[in-house]
Amino acid sequence: MQLLNLATIRQHLDPAAVMDAIEKAFVKYSAGDVTVPPVGHLPFPTGDCHIKYGYITGDDYFVIKIASGSHGNHALGVSPSSGMMVVCSATTGHPVALLQDEGHLTDLRTAMAGAIAAKYLAPPEVRTIGIIGSGIQAKLQLEYLKPVCACRKVLVWNHRAERHGEFIEFASAAGFTATAADSADDVAAGSDLVVTTTPSTSAMIGSAAVRPGTHITAVGADTPGKQELDAALVARADVLVVDSLSQCTDHGEIQTAVREKTIRASDLQELGNVIAGKAPGRTAPEQITIADLTGVAVQDIAIATSVFAAWQAANGQTGDPSLAVTLPG
Amino acid sequence: MQLLNLATIRQHLDPAAVMDAIEKAFVKYSAGDVTVPPVGHLPFPTGDCHIKYGYITGDDYFVIKIASGSHGNHALGVSPSSGMMVVCSATTGHPVALLQDEGHLTDLRTAMAGAIAAKYLAPPEVRTIGIIGSGIQAKLQLEYLKPVCACRKVLVWNHRAERHGEFIEFASAAGFTATAADSADDVAAGSDLVVTTTPSTSAMIGSAAVRPGTHITAVGADTPGKQELDAALVARADVLVVDSLSQCTDHGEIQTAVREKTIRASDLQELGNVIAGKAPGRTAPEQITIADLTGVAVQDIAIATSVFAAWQAANGQTGDPSLAVTLPG
Repeated sequence: MQLLNLATIRQHLDPAAVMDAIEKAFVKYSAGDVTVPPVGHLPFPTGDCHIKYGYITGDDYFVIKIASGSHGNHALGVSPSSGMMVVCSATTGHPVALLQDEGHLTDLRTAMAGAIAAKYLAPPEVRTIGIIGSGIQAKLQLEYLKPVCACRKVLVWNHRAERHGEFIEFASAAGFTATAADSADDVAAGSDLVVTTTPSTSAMIGSAAVRPGTHITAVGADTPGKQELDAALVARADVLVVDSLSQCTDHGEIQTAVREKTIRASDLQELGNVIAGKAPGRTAPEQITIADLTGVAVQDIAIATSVFAAWQAANGQTGDPSLAVTLPG
Repeated sequence: MQLLNLATIRQHLDPAAVMDAIEKAFVKYSAGDVTVPPVGHLPFPTGDCHIKYGYITGDDYFVIKIASGSHGNHALGVSPSSGMMVVCSATTGHPVALLQDEGHLTDLRTAMAGAIAAKYLAPPEVRTIGIIGSGIQAKLQLEYLKPVCACRKVLVWNHRAERHGEFIEFASAAGFTATAADSADDVAAGSDLVVTTTPSTSAMIGSAAVRPGTHITAVGADTPGKQELDAALVARADVLVVDSLSQCTDHGEIQTAVREKTIRASDLQELGNVIAGKAPGRTAPEQITIADLTGVAVQDIAIATSVFAAWQAANGQTGDPSLAVTLPG
């Protein structure tokens, strides 16, 4: 089994190739060409461990991701989250690579899904990008929008205003003209493409703030009880796209609207079907579109196998390495 | 994260300490002092990957085991199974050790559970040990019976008689006088302590063959459809002990008897409760006792944390190593 640490992973990560692999993985997911068992969940005293795993039909490898978060870590001076991905041969079952990515690949695949949603759903002209939240995911979402969106103007809001400066500095270094807004509603009112990245448990963006033609990608809500958008805004959207019908109706941004029955399952389109052209997505510039992304194991599979393939290519290795390990005798 | 390969794992494995840890883990399991989510299961074209994981209340670490088996591997010249265990801090959630045991620790913890069952359930005098099957698990079961049973006479039967010679050689080297029998029934008829270790899907031992006073440990049945003992024998047993009530009634040796309603849930005792003295186990020499072992995540937790603790002690390391990794800045 090959071990790849974070530095090696960064070295062999080709964003364009990974984005392409994630798009294809979403298509396979929505077409049902995957095996994605329910997410494993193990609570421990100060946090939770999640195990996401799956197999894309026809792939050479399957992937298991182990990721933990603990709310006590900040006080202990250690990273709040951790993660690793195990790439296993779909021929022998043997592990072939362990990616010690410390959660970085999860951050990246989440940001890339946001970029994919924008690529397919953003209005034709984006004059301002709005970002809610200013943490690592807020920064990555902005960074990965660059290849899919020409706009270089960004409005940001974080509930802790003292963090705006650091985000603006990051955005400037990335080539954006960045300004802080006074509220999430102000961000929404001034932007055509909004990304929400917070762990909020109550709506921050009301329906009244959002102009026709806006696209919103919501990545913050990933467990029951989390919410960033008002349920009335979700109900008002012309196009509702989800990464996973089953996950989003249970614990995504749209969970409240589903529970309050202001939207129906038939209102929802899966991102993979939009990418494949099987679902319409945005059909007019004035439509309000919302993408609710909860994170699907196929993204982890795509990013882990892409990085491993790039590492293999760079190291002159071809084929499934587990086939080269023969039994003694 | 510390990586321990198989050679290092073997070097730091103290069988007596691990057996003790597994006994205590069974007690905690049966007392409900554990979190053991359902086993994760991912099928791939030629096999299956299983993820067993859990947390024993109060432990410093939780453990995730990834194990795969593929029926195509023999023809490919690679090991049929593989496995690894990840030890994570229950304080930070961070992985602290990866045990690349290649499935060896699963083999060992299964054999040790057999020894524990024999320790608590075997008749007072064992004149002959009977082993059904002659593979790695058959050998390990015999080996780990040594500390808990003074008998050094063994009868073996495998459905492929050409394999008897190798088993007899192994048993002799381990200090046993070993003889091959003509059938599983012959083994049962000639033994007081029988261990069945095969992947059989139909009964090999009939009730008529078994003498009063016999103890049988069945470790082969671990999925729906597998069976080694006749359902009438299961129904006749005076004492029925299972490692896990939920697992054994679903996919253990007793599944057929449960389905045919020849035994009731109230007839079953969990091994952890027998060890703790909360369930009676064997109460008379002439009783027939059966232990049905399907393998529980707490065994994996116990063996992985024991090996890691021994490695830490040998390397002058104390405490949770994830607490020593501080954030930059």
